[in-house]
Amino acid sequence: MMKLPEPVQKVADELAELPSIGPRQAVRLAFYLVGRDKGELRDLAAAIDALRGIKICARCYFIHQNDGALCDVCANPARTQRIIMVVEKETDYLSLENTKKFTGCYFITGPVPKTGFLEAWQKARIASFKKYIAEELGGAADEIILGFNPTTLGDFQAGLILKELAPLAKKISRLGRGLPTGGEIEFADDETLGSALERRS
Amino acid sequence: MMKLPEPVQKVADELAELPSIGPRQAVRLAFYLVGRDKGELRDLAAAIDALRGIKICARCYFIHQNDGALCDVCANPARTQRIIMVVEKETDYLSLENTKKFTGCYFITGPVPKTGFLEAWQKARIASFKKYIAEELGGAADEIILGFNPTTLGDFQAGLILKELAPLAKKISRLGRGLPTGGEIEFADDETLGSALERRS
Repeated sequence: MMKLPEPVQKVADELAELPSIGPRQAVRLAFYLVGRDKGELRDLAAAIDALRGIKICARCYFIHQNDGALCDVCANPARTQRIIMVVEKETDYLSLENTKKFTGCYFITGPVPKTGFLEAWQKARIASFKKYIAEELGGAADEIILGFNPTTLGDFQAGLILKELAPLAKKISRLGRGLPTGGEIEFADDETLGSALERRS
Repeated sequence: MMKLPEPVQKVADELAELPSIGPRQAVRLAFYLVGRDKGELRDLAAAIDALRGIKICARCYFIHQNDGALCDVCANPARTQRIIMVVEKETDYLSLENTKKFTGCYFITGPVPKTGFLEAWQKARIASFKKYIAEELGGAADEIILGFNPTTLGDFQAGLILKELAPLAKKISRLGRGLPTGGEIEFADDETLGSALERRS
């Protein structure tokens, strides 16, 4: 390979570390950035640097900037701490939170590997979650909702997490399946239609 | 939308500005970055900030860090300045340069819009290219090679650029078409096979 100027190569290498960005796309992005004006580059660099000040909630692992250890939801006394939505990632948390329909709290597992083997940091998260349930909720939550995708992978992930968390709640549930609002029966797949029939209301 | 901490929102907004990164992916990447350790974040921020020191070649628009205004290729007296490969983007330049078979120079147009209307900065590049050919090469290069992709879009782009550059060279060519090395006749499309037949050697 022709050698790129060192700062460009470094940015390309750093970007290639990000999930869903391949090495070629990383090089293209680095070139794109070189073409931006100096003010924009300074802004982007400063914004990334400022992420160092963001904290992770000690209980659910969502991000926050509060003085204490807990995020806005976990620190809010109006939220039901005994109903916990377990999600894979922060963006799922955001989507659910945006419905304004859920008044419980969350726990973020981080991406559950397809291999079926949890990462070390993930096991640590789950261990701290178990400790929280034992110490603060008397050993069992009222309900744990497994907020995983209604896909084959999501089912697999939910099964894996269920094994860990089953003893920690009086009730375990998953998000309801059926026709998505705005969807058309004609184009729904068999699984979805089957679920819609079973769970008709 | 639930409000994200301001630095996280800012990074997500900045990343969403990058080509080929959508707003959702930008938010996911911002969350990923929050989870990185502080040293990594500082490194990435510093690398992006250092891009401000990278220069763009006054002649071909490739990046460089030389004292003068020209990139390594344009400043190299061993390269033939009278044969110019016109490419759309820096990564095409890199791929061609990596073959070590091309001894001419380059000119980077930047992504040619599908609309057929060149951007203002793109017109400025082409104007400066024309001025260079007029002043330094006596009004015409020996050969201009249109190094655009062998695709429908690439053909369209090459046509558009050809209109601009046709009077500036004694000969205009495009990269040869035919079977790619390692490819199989059985799986080649008709266009490719047709080219391979026409240009057999």
